[in-house]
Amino acid sequence: MGREKDRSLSHLDEAGKARMVDVAGKAVTRRRAVAEGFVALSQETFEAIRDLRVAKGNVLETARIAGIQGAKRCADLIPLCHPLPLDFVDVRFEEDAAAHRLRIVAEAQVDAKTGVEMEAMTAVAVAALTVYDMVKGMERGVTLGPFRLLEKSGGRSGTWKAT
Amino acid sequence: MGREKDRSLSHLDEAGKARMVDVAGKAVTRRRAVAEGFVALSQETFEAIRDLRVAKGNVLETARIAGIQGAKRCADLIPLCHPLPLDFVDVRFEEDAAAHRLRIVAEAQVDAKTGVEMEAMTAVAVAALTVYDMVKGMERGVTLGPFRLLEKSGGRSGTWKAT
Amino acid sequence: MGREKDRSLSHLDEAGKARMVDVAGKAVTRRRAVAEGFVALSQETFEAIRDLRVAKGNVLETARIAGIQGAKRCADLIPLCHPLPLDFVDVRFEEDAAAHRLRIVAEAQVDAKTGVEMEAMTAVAVAALTVYDMVKGMERGVTLGPFRLLEKSGGRSGTWKAT
Amino acid sequence: MGREKDRSLSHLDEAGKARMVDVAGKAVTRRRAVAEGFVALSQETFEAIRDLRVAKGNVLETARIAGIQGAKRCADLIPLCHPLPLDFVDVRFEEDAAAHRLRIVAEAQVDAKTGVEMEAMTAVAVAALTVYDMVKGMERGVTLGPFRLLEKSGGRSGTWKAT
Amino acid sequence: MGREKDRSLSHLDEAGKARMVDVAGKAVTRRRAVAEGFVALSQETFEAIRDLRVAKGNVLETARIAGIQGAKRCADLIPLCHPLPLDFVDVRFEEDAAAHRLRIVAEAQVDAKTGVEMEAMTAVAVAALTVYDMVKGMERGVTLGPFRLLEKSGGRSGTWKAT
Amino acid sequence: MGREKDRSLSHLDEAGKARMVDVAGKAVTRRRAVAEGFVALSQETFEAIRDLRVAKGNVLETARIAGIQGAKRCADLIPLCHPLPLDFVDVRFEEDAAAHRLRIVAEAQVDAKTGVEMEAMTAVAVAALTVYDMVKGMERGVTLGPFRLLEKSGGRSGTWKAT
Repeated sequence: MGREKDRSLSHLDEAGKARMVDVAGKAVTRRRAVAEGFVALSQETFEAIRDLRVAKGNVLETARIAGIQGAKRCADLIPLCHPLPLDFVDVRFEEDAAAHRLRIVAEAQVDAKTGVEMEAMTAVAVAALTVYDMVKGMERGVTLGPFRLLEKSGGRSGTWKAT
Repeated sequence: MGREKDRSLSHLDEAGKARMVDVAGKAVTRRRAVAEGFVALSQETFEAIRDLRVAKGNVLETARIAGIQGAKRCADLIPLCHPLPLDFVDVRFEEDAAAHRLRIVAEAQVDAKTGVEMEAMTAVAVAALTVYDMVKGMERGVTLGPFRLLEKSGGRSGTWKAT
Repeated sequence: MGREKDRSLSHLDEAGKARMVDVAGKAVTRRRAVAEGFVALSQETFEAIRDLRVAKGNVLETARIAGIQGAKRCADLIPLCHPLPLDFVDVRFEEDAAAHRLRIVAEAQVDAKTGVEMEAMTAVAVAALTVYDMVKGMERGVTLGPFRLLEKSGGRSGTWKAT
Repeated sequence: MGREKDRSLSHLDEAGKARMVDVAGKAVTRRRAVAEGFVALSQETFEAIRDLRVAKGNVLETARIAGIQGAKRCADLIPLCHPLPLDFVDVRFEEDAAAHRLRIVAEAQVDAKTGVEMEAMTAVAVAALTVYDMVKGMERGVTLGPFRLLEKSGGRSGTWKAT
Repeated sequence: MGREKDRSLSHLDEAGKARMVDVAGKAVTRRRAVAEGFVALSQETFEAIRDLRVAKGNVLETARIAGIQGAKRCADLIPLCHPLPLDFVDVRFEEDAAAHRLRIVAEAQVDAKTGVEMEAMTAVAVAALTVYDMVKGMERGVTLGPFRLLEKSGGRSGTWKAT
Repeated sequence: MGREKDRSLSHLDEAGKARMVDVAGKAVTRRRAVAEGFVALSQETFEAIRDLRVAKGNVLETARIAGIQGAKRCADLIPLCHPLPLDFVDVRFEEDAAAHRLRIVAEAQVDAKTGVEMEAMTAVAVAALTVYDMVKGMERGVTLGPFRLLEKSGGRSGTWKAT
């Protein structure tokens, strides 16, 4: 990961004030990031979503749309994020029936001077929140997470993959 | 929790289509919700935030502002949420030095026909994403979550607390 | 419809300047509005949507979500609209196979001092635009419309229905 | 129009899920799109707008501003649209006194990997909705539309014009 | 002005953290606020606006619309503001030909638990910024301000007027 | 400043209608703008902010975040502004204890066809409004301004500095 793991918080200036990282001098390169997140459900809720999904797909389709929209609004939500003209956002779901758990995987791509990790992470988080919104009438105590970055590529620091 | 745990997904109509719950007939009552979420950091990153926080407070202050703003944008992000004129949003952080982990607690209040669970959950999630944005240059593999509702009160279903 | 059809453009003041109507003195009443719109497709495109809808529902589900979100953003889009804490938004589709045409019907409800006609109309328009976005690769010349208000109730002018 | 009219719904993946089209591999070219829409008014309402417009321009000026702003928010409204740094948006009105009808023409331009059809269409639709908002006190039954793309240029599929 | 001028910064909690003021316990009353701001122009720019305004009204009409929209987005812009369902926003301009200066006056009204000072102030500021945007090609050095609250009424602290 | 100071209002077309400037033909160059603004406080309020700032930094930190976010939303607020993928936004404060006055300086940078003057000006204005929001309980009559551009560089007209 090299130089980017430089032991400093690049969003804070020398005096410790919050600031946007200046990416003016950086090269435009192809950037890609993938993130994942989980929604842990009771078996009953898991099956309700799955049965509806098979028949009509609506809980997960609504969450997918919300996740994609969330990625596009990332710079509005996260104060120090740069606005980016995203080339691609994808949100998909995997069902783990044994653990009655949803896995959400989001991917973002752009040609830009800075990465799209936050866009992928935001897509996962907003999709998970949307699932919770739709099932909370059945099961209020659903837990969301963990959310984490799986991989990123592009830019000075190159490719990174979660261990 | 009574009648609200009615084994149906209230955000889907009889034909399984996504819909906003009609709250027209509901009474306006005082609604309150509290949610929590965690950010699991390496000891090094935890200390970097804490040291800065003690001196200048900026990582957590930025995340706090983002969380409050996120709560206000909840209905923009979560497709079937009702827009609500929030009376109060609060986001606070607790540091668990032994586990080098942050706990985020968010609270939302409103007088409305529907609850503010999603506003509290969104505040927590956006605050956590903002912390991640600010530390990802140091530690890209930070995990966010679990996020969950701690309690809610108001409305037909009354008070609920997480076990 | 009475006094509201008062032969003046209430959004313009005496000097002809654009202004928001002052609803401060109006009573809060239950407001409801229903609007409709059409999307005229080739038979081929109509069938592509319908087949997908039966199997997976995605073109219309995406448009439904977009329409609901559009209604919630009405006051952001339409300069002189009042922001309203909507109680309910619904968007549904009817398929006219003979005419290979979609009919979109949107409904909005609120307890407020002013009506929700624009929210219903905006939901229809954004849903139609979203359908167009998803089929324009197949058929760029799709026509949207007509869009119109079907009925409204509540407020000083009472109930109105399109002829 | 060639290969883009490829008889598939490019916004749905192989499994029929809604997705954003991946434009990462596409070349940046000059993109331009023009759309039109109509607002059919009673003679009385048409003349009220025209008289005000001649004197003060406010109904149409407000609608013009709203249409331009709407184009800039296209990616916020239409779930699978890419955010684009627009170079130009224009909204203009033509009055057909004989038919007491307004014609709205919107144009959008950008250098990007994907087209600006939706931005032009959204500008027309939001401008029409804004006209309706301002005249609905006089004439609630106004019909909006048809809305359609007139032409687009740029990109792999080249120039397209409505017949 | 009484108890509200209580020598503490109500937006900071005891530990000095930024927070939204909790208005849950406050009564809903009629709230009104008026603010003003100035745009100081060269005589040449002032006359260009005035001439256009007389004939077509567009610089000031565009700024008026922007100011009204800005008031509606106040809670999105100002982190600790409460979202309010505004009843009324008005923005008007007064021309001081001798000083070739514009005066902008904005008013906001709502029935709410908290005041609309920030909505009136935001309307003035956004209108002034919009004027600057439209004349900066002629005169880049225009100065905006001073901006200040002129009066507010409603709520526990009652009526306040600038001296 | 050359040809850009061309004695015409470029945001109005030949017929005087508001329009977005067409930047399609312009070259992408590095653009930078710096703006300043002032907040004039009573000595008491000034000291309250300063004391809190020294200890915890929260009034100014909140205003800084709001200013940065405001810059990113510039094209949403200012009708004829182009949306720009900003490379950098910075907001900083200088305290003039003798005059008990805050100076806000904002800088924006982008590689684009058009300048970032409005982004810098909007950052200053939103930061100033946020300071006002947080101190208005102590001192309602605070005045904001003057706001003005200090310098800009890039583009056809090159570098400009305020006198």
